[in-house]
Amino acid sequence: MSKTQPARGMRDFLPSDIRKRNYVIGIIKEVYESYGFEPLETPAGENIETLTGKYGEEGNQLIFKILKRGEGEKTGEVDLALRYDLTVPLARVVANNKNELPKFFKRYQIQPVWRADRPARGRFREFYQCDVDAIGSSSMIVEAELCAAGSKILRRLGFEDFVIRVNHRAILYAMLDAVEIKEEKQTDALTALDKLDKIGEEGVLKEFENRGIAKDTASKLLNLLGDLKNSDNSKILSVLSEFIGRNETGQHGIKQVSQILELTGLESLKIDASLARGLSYYTGAIFEVNVPDLAGSIASGGRYDGLIGMFGKEEIPASGFSLGLERILLIMNERGMFPPELETNAADVLVTVWSEESIGESLKLANDLRKTGLRVLVYPEADKLGKQFKYADSIGVGYVCVLGETEITENKVTLKNMRTGEQETILREEIAGKIRR
Amino acid sequence: MSKTQPARGMRDFLPSDIRKRNYVIGIIKEVYESYGFEPLETPAGENIETLTGKYGEEGNQLIFKILKRGEGEKTGEVDLALRYDLTVPLARVVANNKNELPKFFKRYQIQPVWRADRPARGRFREFYQCDVDAIGSSSMIVEAELCAAGSKILRRLGFEDFVIRVNHRAILYAMLDAVEIKEEKQTDALTALDKLDKIGEEGVLKEFENRGIAKDTASKLLNLLGDLKNSDNSKILSVLSEFIGRNETGQHGIKQVSQILELTGLESLKIDASLARGLSYYTGAIFEVNVPDLAGSIASGGRYDGLIGMFGKEEIPASGFSLGLERILLIMNERGMFPPELETNAADVLVTVWSEESIGESLKLANDLRKTGLRVLVYPEADKLGKQFKYADSIGVGYVCVLGETEITENKVTLKNMRTGEQETILREEIAGKIRR
Repeated sequence: MSKTQPARGMRDFLPSDIRKRNYVIGIIKEVYESYGFEPLETPAGENIETLTGKYGEEGNQLIFKILKRGEGEKTGEVDLALRYDLTVPLARVVANNKNELPKFFKRYQIQPVWRADRPARGRFREFYQCDVDAIGSSSMIVEAELCAAGSKILRRLGFEDFVIRVNHRAILYAMLDAVEIKEEKQTDALTALDKLDKIGEEGVLKEFENRGIAKDTASKLLNLLGDLKNSDNSKILSVLSEFIGRNETGQHGIKQVSQILELTGLESLKIDASLARGLSYYTGAIFEVNVPDLAGSIASGGRYDGLIGMFGKEEIPASGFSLGLERILLIMNERGMFPPELETNAADVLVTVWSEESIGESLKLANDLRKTGLRVLVYPEADKLGKQFKYADSIGVGYVCVLGETEITENKVTLKNMRTGEQETILREEIAGKIRR
Repeated sequence: MSKTQPARGMRDFLPSDIRKRNYVIGIIKEVYESYGFEPLETPAGENIETLTGKYGEEGNQLIFKILKRGEGEKTGEVDLALRYDLTVPLARVVANNKNELPKFFKRYQIQPVWRADRPARGRFREFYQCDVDAIGSSSMIVEAELCAAGSKILRRLGFEDFVIRVNHRAILYAMLDAVEIKEEKQTDALTALDKLDKIGEEGVLKEFENRGIAKDTASKLLNLLGDLKNSDNSKILSVLSEFIGRNETGQHGIKQVSQILELTGLESLKIDASLARGLSYYTGAIFEVNVPDLAGSIASGGRYDGLIGMFGKEEIPASGFSLGLERILLIMNERGMFPPELETNAADVLVTVWSEESIGESLKLANDLRKTGLRVLVYPEADKLGKQFKYADSIGVGYVCVLGETEITENKVTLKNMRTGEQETILREEIAGKIRR
């Protein structure tokens, strides 16, 4: 007997899993499409050279690599790799379809990616990413719409307690300039700062020290962040503006953030001057969405004007947002946020089969019921009625139609409500109405 | 500059492609769910030993193999392989979830598979399969429902000229017994017979000869098939029944086929005694669906009672149907069968942006329109109106809302119909109604 589990870190999705995933994905699609985002899909396999060198040394090692057909079996040569994220494929598609795609291209993409990571709770080797990106414009209209759409999706899914934290790369660098951290140490400083939530002030001070950043410099920064912690957005903006002084790009960042706040009018948007976002490719406003019962974020994003042009000659402005689909599903499961009808089984009603001779009658009834929009299972064999009811019970179907000899002669059906146990013999045309009620 | 095409034999799906694919997949899902089939998804990567040895020597060579992480980079060792079909993963899932899955399990699965085949017109290295299978019952109710659901899907998609050819493995073997082809030559004979459509009677005779089957034997068989060619189903059944005589399993096959015909009552079902279906794992009724403008089939299937149990100890009866999604899309594209609204672009209406100061007004209008169910694009920058109209034209959006200074003051909007060129200044609340008309 062979091993029957799925491969390590990968999952089979049984019907009830899929129903939940499709429910969430359906809402995401609907909202994004209402904002004019269009669907894009790219292949699971990319040429190896498309992916290598794009994700840093660590990322490179996590790419699943595919043996070249034929000779590769002997030499170990690889020519393909599995999709590692949705951003590099997007950049490739944009470069490859310059003339077909509109000047402003808004796309969403919901597909699995693969990473040869060590599996852990909530970390898989195959998982879905759900990215939305707007390409071709530098206006804050883009950021405002990304936040508004993301927020609408989360509300539609039933989240009420999320916070969209916003910051701006230019503000961060201006803050570091203001406390006179030298340019060559700024990336280190941001990396340390990004961990404030996890390692606390003490931890950040230590990291700063390890990186040779003076203690009073670090304290100045942490004091500022401490002061801002419980302030409202407009207070934060004015304190920050004063702190960074005449730094022009920093002030531009402040202007952009205040524009995003104004354009969206979202109460869930909060400026967080400590938000740094690890990924070095962000160039403007950055976002992270959190809920109280999860340490990490359930969505994140930002502007990355340098990246989409990587396969072409020109720099293309772009800003994007990624929903953490797997985490959203996890929390919705834990909180019981799915509509109850998703928990039910394959069908609204089971039609029994009385005898070999009456199979046709059962199939006909099933078809008539399907025409009313019901999902109808036919018991797939002529068998004892008791067994058929037992099966109905085991799969949790709500109603059973019994079509015995008497019923067939009288053109009636005995309808049993499996929850209450009630049953009544009624005309066929009454069934759909009874079940819908 | 790097190569920007997708990997060989794989495809990027741009928005208009996805819309068409999703339209077809949506109908497939809806119909299958109305028959009580449930969705299943399995990982792209399977343990290599799950797949090797399951697809014959030729299949083995077409499996994409994935290098083992870490040491594999040096040794060329592989531990995973890409999903090659949807049947082996189903068999694995059934074995792995014996206690969770219902006794009768009806599942559909629509996912890509990967084959390292030589790409050609209509043949890809990544392509979608769309399988539906009913597991656990030997009754012809299963076959009847598979045919009825498949037929309903094709009709819903707009196909009217398809034929579902049906035959039965037991009838085929009984025919070969009747002309005294020995058991050890029967598989060869079926392989030759299966090509009748492609290579004609002459070709089949030659193949029989090459395989050492006597010429008069072959002629007897071909004469029978020729006689049956234009007969109706009941005539074919009676001729076949007489031809195979007292062969019990053969007569059982005939009984099953006539039961399928009777239970479905489908006019599109035609018995074709020459239909053999290459795959050796079929054990009962077999199907193939054809349309006049395609040489191959657009769907096929049959009963395969031995296969699903491959990872377990018991034989599990099963019957399935596979829709050729890529071919269906190809024909629908060629015939222009997609509803015209799928051909349109990302949005129903574009809202223009007059100036930096009026961005908020444009976003607000867009949001109000979204609440009516419209898909709304906001031009992502304050820019000259001429440029915004040019963009609207380039993406083919049907309506443009102009929100200039006068309009904002008067709480109105100028709505331009991009097809007719007409424009009128109306109240905001009238817009949705005008566009819907």
